[in-house]
Amino acid sequence: MSSNLQQSMLEAIEKELQHQVARLDQPRTKLFYEMLTYHMGWTGEGAGSLVTGKRIRPLLILLTVDSCVSEDNRIKWLHAVSSATAIELIHNFSLVHDDIQDNSSMRRGRQTAWAKWGAPMAINVGDALFVIANQAILDLVEYYPAEIVVKAASILNENCLDLTRGQYLDMAYETRKDLGMEDYWPMIGGKTSALLSSCTHIGSLLGYAKEAKQEAYRLFGYHLGLAFQVRDDILGIWGDETVTGKSTASDLVEGKNSLPVLYGLEKNGKFAERWRQGPITVNDVLKVSALLEDEGAREYAEKMSEVETQKALDYLKQADPRGEAGDTMLGLANMLLNRKQ
Amino acid sequence: MSSNLQQSMLEAIEKELQHQVARLDQPRTKLFYEMLTYHMGWTGEGAGSLVTGKRIRPLLILLTVDSCVSEDNRIKWLHAVSSATAIELIHNFSLVHDDIQDNSSMRRGRQTAWAKWGAPMAINVGDALFVIANQAILDLVEYYPAEIVVKAASILNENCLDLTRGQYLDMAYETRKDLGMEDYWPMIGGKTSALLSSCTHIGSLLGYAKEAKQEAYRLFGYHLGLAFQVRDDILGIWGDETVTGKSTASDLVEGKNSLPVLYGLEKNGKFAERWRQGPITVNDVLKVSALLEDEGAREYAEKMSEVETQKALDYLKQADPRGEAGDTMLGLANMLLNRKQ
Repeated sequence: MSSNLQQSMLEAIEKELQHQVARLDQPRTKLFYEMLTYHMGWTGEGAGSLVTGKRIRPLLILLTVDSCVSEDNRIKWLHAVSSATAIELIHNFSLVHDDIQDNSSMRRGRQTAWAKWGAPMAINVGDALFVIANQAILDLVEYYPAEIVVKAASILNENCLDLTRGQYLDMAYETRKDLGMEDYWPMIGGKTSALLSSCTHIGSLLGYAKEAKQEAYRLFGYHLGLAFQVRDDILGIWGDETVTGKSTASDLVEGKNSLPVLYGLEKNGKFAERWRQGPITVNDVLKVSALLEDEGAREYAEKMSEVETQKALDYLKQADPRGEAGDTMLGLANMLLNRKQ
Repeated sequence: MSSNLQQSMLEAIEKELQHQVARLDQPRTKLFYEMLTYHMGWTGEGAGSLVTGKRIRPLLILLTVDSCVSEDNRIKWLHAVSSATAIELIHNFSLVHDDIQDNSSMRRGRQTAWAKWGAPMAINVGDALFVIANQAILDLVEYYPAEIVVKAASILNENCLDLTRGQYLDMAYETRKDLGMEDYWPMIGGKTSALLSSCTHIGSLLGYAKEAKQEAYRLFGYHLGLAFQVRDDILGIWGDETVTGKSTASDLVEGKNSLPVLYGLEKNGKFAERWRQGPITVNDVLKVSALLEDEGAREYAEKMSEVETQKALDYLKQADPRGEAGDTMLGLANMLLNRKQ
C-alpha cells in the first residue's frame, strides 16, 4: 500500500508537525520544547521513524481530502496539512496524559514523558500539545474560508470531548464489577473512533464534499475505528507477540476491559468467576485465555470485527473515494483491519 | 464598583457557563459531569457563590466589549458571552491541573478535584474543561463573522500556550538555585498576564475596536496582570490573613518563587542564605519575612507594583473605554490592584 503520494504526504506531515511544535522553541523554554520533541519521537534516546508512530490519522485526513476532488477542480491536499497535524497532536496529547493515568512507564520501547520528567511536567506537556493542535487547525485559514475553518475546529473539538468521555468510561470501569458488552461501544466510540471519524469528516469537509458524502466519510472513519479496536482487542489476548510487538495476552494481565473480556463477564461462566477473583498473573494467562476462547469470546469478537469492517467498507463505497488517494485509503483501511487486499 | 450592568453580566456568564458544561450531562457520564460542576462551584459540599471564584476574567471581556462601542453603533455584549465563558473555562482547566501539579488538596476551603477523585480522573476533568472552552469560543459564530471568530480563537490559544510556558517555568524554577529577578516576569507573564490580556484583547476585537485600540486594551490587560500578581505576591508574605483569606506568609512556607523572594535571592544576603538552607517553617516565618523586608524586598515590590499599575492605567486611558462599562472596568481594575478609587 506504499505509494509516492503517501510518501509525499508523510513527509509533509512530519515537516508541518515540526513547524507547529517549534512554537515552543524559545530561549527560556528549551527543555519544555525538548519534552515535546522527545515524545514526538524526534529527539532523545531511540529517536527516529521507528518510534514516531505511523501517523495514520493525519495520513487519513490528507487521503480523504485528495480522494474527494475531481481532477478538474483539484484542491491541493497540501493546503490541509495543518489540520492533519492538529489531529496527530491531539492523538499525542491523549497518549501523554493516558500514560500518566495508566501509570505506564514505557511506550514504543522508550520511557514515557512522565517517567522521564515526572507527572506534573508531563501533564503540562500534554496540555501544550493540545494547545498547539488547536493553533494548527486554525492555521487552515491561510488556504480556506473562515467559515470552513470554524466548522473544522468545531468537529475536532466535538470529537475531543468524546475522547474525554471515552477516557472517563475507561477509568470508571476499572472499579465496576457489573460490566457487560453494552458498556464497550460507548468507551471505544470515544477512545478510538472519535478521532478517526474526525479525520474522514474534516478531510471530506476540506475536500469540499457535499453533506451526504461528508456523512458517509464520517461514518467510514467511525466504524473503521470500532473494527480496528475490536481487532486490537483480539490480538491483545490471542495475538502473536512477534507480529504485534506486545507481550501476548498482556491485556488479560493488565485487566483491560476489552470486548472478549466483557463478553466473558456477561456470559458469567468460569472465566467471569476467575476474573472476579483478582488479577491474572503471567502464569495463568494461557489457561485463562483458553477458557475465554472456549466460552465463545474469540468467535464473538471476530464476528463483531467483521460486522464493523463491513460497515466501514460499505460507507467507504458510498463515499466513493477517487483516484490514487482513494486506492491508497482502501489499502490503509485493509492494513489497519489486518486484511489481505 | 457594583452596578446593574455588572450584575447582569455576571448572571449571563453563570448561565452560559452552565450551558457550556452541560455538554457532558449525558446518561453514561453523569459522574464525570458532576466532577466538572463540583469544581465550578455549583454542586457538592460548600457549593455556592462563595466558592465559584469572582469570574473576573469573563467580566473583563464583556466590560471591554461594551466599553468599545459608541451608543449609535452598539454591539450587544450578550453576543460575546460564549467567549467570556471560554476564558473562565481555560482559567479553571489550569486550576484543576495546577492543583495536581502542586499537590494542593484544598482550594477555596473545599477538596480539590484530584483529592476527591484521584489524579487520573482530575487530569481528564481539566482536559474536558479545556475542550469545552474551545467549543465555547467557536460558538461566537452565531453572532460574529467567521473571520473574527478565527481571530478570537487564535488569540485565546496563543495565550494558552503562554500559560503552559509560564507553568513550565514555575515548575522548572523549583529545582533551580540561581534564580534572579529577571526570571520573574516571563513566568508571571505566562501564568497570570496571558489570560488577562486575552480578555481585553478579545473583548476589544469583539467590540469592533480598531487595531491601535485593540493593542492598547491588550497591553492594559497584560500590565493589569503583572501589577495584580506583584500585589498578590506582597500580600502572600506581608498580607493580613483576615483580608486575603490565606494564611499570612504561607508563600514563604510553600517556597513560592515570588518577586520579593527573587529580589532577596539576587541580593544574596542573609535572606538568600536562609532560603538556600531549606524549607521555611511556620515558626521561622515572621523572622524570615522581617529579614526580607529589611533587605528592601517589600519596598522594591511595592514600587514595581506601582510601576505596572501606572502602565496598565496609561494603556487603559489610551484605549479610552466608554460609558458605564468603562467606569465599571476602571472600578474593577482598582479593586484588583487594591487601590482606593
